[in-house]
Amino acid sequence: MARSPHALDFSKARSRFLSRDDNPRAYLERRIATISARDAQVHAFVTLGLEGARRAADASAGRYRDGKPLSAVDGMPVGIKDIMDTRDLPTQMGNSIYTGNQPRWDAACVHALRSGGAIVVGKTVTTAFACGATNETRNPLDLTRTPGGSSSGSAAAVGAGMVPAALGTQTQGSTLRPASYCGAVGFKPTHGVLTMQGVHPISLTHDHLGVIAGTLDDAWCVASHVSLASGNPGAAGLQGASAVLPTARKPRKLIVLHTKTWESEVEAPARAAFEALLQRLREREVELVTRRDDPHFAAFEDEVFGTFIDRSVDITSYEMKWPYEQYAAQHGDRLEQRVHDRLARAREMSAEYYAELLAEKTRMKDRARDVMGVADAILTLAASGPAPVGHGHTGSRAYLVYATFLGLPAFSLPVMEADGMPLGAQLIGRAGRDAELCALAHWVLSLES
Amino acid sequence: MARSPHALDFSKARSRFLSRDDNPRAYLERRIATISARDAQVHAFVTLGLEGARRAADASAGRYRDGKPLSAVDGMPVGIKDIMDTRDLPTQMGNSIYTGNQPRWDAACVHALRSGGAIVVGKTVTTAFACGATNETRNPLDLTRTPGGSSSGSAAAVGAGMVPAALGTQTQGSTLRPASYCGAVGFKPTHGVLTMQGVHPISLTHDHLGVIAGTLDDAWCVASHVSLASGNPGAAGLQGASAVLPTARKPRKLIVLHTKTWESEVEAPARAAFEALLQRLREREVELVTRRDDPHFAAFEDEVFGTFIDRSVDITSYEMKWPYEQYAAQHGDRLEQRVHDRLARAREMSAEYYAELLAEKTRMKDRARDVMGVADAILTLAASGPAPVGHGHTGSRAYLVYATFLGLPAFSLPVMEADGMPLGAQLIGRAGRDAELCALAHWVLSLES
Repeated sequence: MARSPHALDFSKARSRFLSRDDNPRAYLERRIATISARDAQVHAFVTLGLEGARRAADASAGRYRDGKPLSAVDGMPVGIKDIMDTRDLPTQMGNSIYTGNQPRWDAACVHALRSGGAIVVGKTVTTAFACGATNETRNPLDLTRTPGGSSSGSAAAVGAGMVPAALGTQTQGSTLRPASYCGAVGFKPTHGVLTMQGVHPISLTHDHLGVIAGTLDDAWCVASHVSLASGNPGAAGLQGASAVLPTARKPRKLIVLHTKTWESEVEAPARAAFEALLQRLREREVELVTRRDDPHFAAFEDEVFGTFIDRSVDITSYEMKWPYEQYAAQHGDRLEQRVHDRLARAREMSAEYYAELLAEKTRMKDRARDVMGVADAILTLAASGPAPVGHGHTGSRAYLVYATFLGLPAFSLPVMEADGMPLGAQLIGRAGRDAELCALAHWVLSLES
Repeated sequence: MARSPHALDFSKARSRFLSRDDNPRAYLERRIATISARDAQVHAFVTLGLEGARRAADASAGRYRDGKPLSAVDGMPVGIKDIMDTRDLPTQMGNSIYTGNQPRWDAACVHALRSGGAIVVGKTVTTAFACGATNETRNPLDLTRTPGGSSSGSAAAVGAGMVPAALGTQTQGSTLRPASYCGAVGFKPTHGVLTMQGVHPISLTHDHLGVIAGTLDDAWCVASHVSLASGNPGAAGLQGASAVLPTARKPRKLIVLHTKTWESEVEAPARAAFEALLQRLREREVELVTRRDDPHFAAFEDEVFGTFIDRSVDITSYEMKWPYEQYAAQHGDRLEQRVHDRLARAREMSAEYYAELLAEKTRMKDRARDVMGVADAILTLAASGPAPVGHGHTGSRAYLVYATFLGLPAFSLPVMEADGMPLGAQLIGRAGRDAELCALAHWVLSLES
């Protein structure tokens, strides 16, 4: 098992809507049946909106009957991470400060999907404010394991086949890690190309909108639709946004990124799975280069992991002053210690120091463009291993921070397994080259079949 | 009368707090007395929070008693434009879609001011979503005239002496125009240096946070405090942010911008006032250059006004898709026709066209830096005349869009009058050089004394 056996393929369902062999309402009812059967154990959803979903599905069914679907996501049931505002469902941020909170708008990403006919089934469980340690969600492939976080419910809902796709966010590893753990495709586009308006922030320079889906096709389609329907003020949008998946393209050369945590965090089954993947790529004549082959990349990797990612915690902490400082002042007992720690760090920082860090981050991004120019993409793990047993934490961030910190597009592809659980391969591209990366991801996934 | 005769000077009050000749609670009570006397006619406030304000004033008074004020804004009563979220007061956006809306956080700018001890007196009237035509607020200097908009209540509250300073926003002319009409100082820093988090958006590439105050000192102090206490994710912050006003500096050379509307919109009294100001500057040996003296600037001015500002309406329209498209779908009858028109235009636009406009805007900003390099700043009117009589609209945007579109820092300085009403001189600086511009503004204001 690499891809979750429950994972759905909406593009196939949509063909059947178009040929009238199926319809969005019937499709939704099957999803609701899965939710009814499994969510008491999995806890993917914090709030369901089935009445509204059924109304939206009927409207979508009418459009397919008339041969006039609104878009490629018309009729797609989706889960929405509960830090994203929804005008008809509470938005509770995974924290009791927001119990019962009812926004008067849909976040821009939610509005974009709805305007294309997608059906909001419900709000998915998040860790507190998407930066907390854990929550009630369980891995649908093994209830004794974590689904990962912070987009826990979005990944679990997709992994369980409750919905074909769900929205998440990633500030460190919150989309790709749970996607990897739950046997789904995770996609975190280039920082800034998708709108975060109406989504509760952690750190705007690090927060990314992400998509978790059963297939690459659906992940691409959802991200594309959000970009085309909403745009992001001041940004050019997702490269090559389209309802059509970019044609598979074989990479000529990949940089293989092990990171220092390969020795300390990655256990034998995950190592074996990754080495087997590398072997398959070599057999297909993909050139693989490591830090031993490319001293420029090695030096850059050392700088990123050795010094800068830790300092990026400072950037995040500084940006968390709003709104977390006021939560701490009024509801301090409802915040996890890690938030208080970040705020304490922020209080020690000056505006000048913050500005220096930003300037250095910009230089690192420029250097990333240069050092990555020698290859098509970077290949690494999407997580340090399969979903850990237990529910005390949502997994390591070690393999996720590189692409997040540098704002690079990244996919988690369910092409490996370890301990009988899925494990994602992470493909990281150059900033703004999301469609080109997706074409490579398409090819890597085709190795499976 | 140039500066409103009612305008307050908080920096002087603060000296008296420090010397214990006055205290924040007593100062607040005098402001409340003014509100009680005048706001039934002026309608500057849509919601008052006097109980909370008195508690905050008592706490501030305690800090001054202990010799430990939190900042230069400690004890300053402020008005907050009602598109800015406040956790303890409704935030109603000037539109019935948001009647009774109660956020669970303070917008970042509000939190910044409160964390420095400033006292939120209430929410000031805005036009609908800061882009509507008019509202119930009246000009405190002449009730038959408009106070300007969209930050109508903020300017009226300052012009009436109800508060020494208030927060506004400017997407086209919404801070500097009402400041000019009400005899106050208006300050719109460089686009992006102050945070808009928690403020209802129109168009993020055009929306600026602004300050309206009785004195330059207070305007600078408020903007500085917001920058230092909050920062803006991804931005370096306000240049030279400090509680201390930059020392006055005489400009060597100013570009005088008349714009084409000088002929069509500016009437004799306003022309005479501006010409008299220019004469005073010449007498002080400030070199004044016009489009006739500088063909490069003339060509740039023609391009900005002749072609690009109209196309910036397209950028704004595209960005208004969220959240206005959903308001139109659900509450279409509650939106003004101009919003529907913008959305109709947005529906005709492609993502590619939007991206092209953004790229062109960036090029225009780069050119602005070059053509402005020959002078210290641009001098023009802050409004095409004094506040118009009547309440059907909030005045012309003709003199405001230049600095707003290009994201340049700008001050409205109450140094002229026409028809017995104040009229602001607008000083426009280079992007990111806010403190340098403030030093020039300081000098221009000193011409008055």
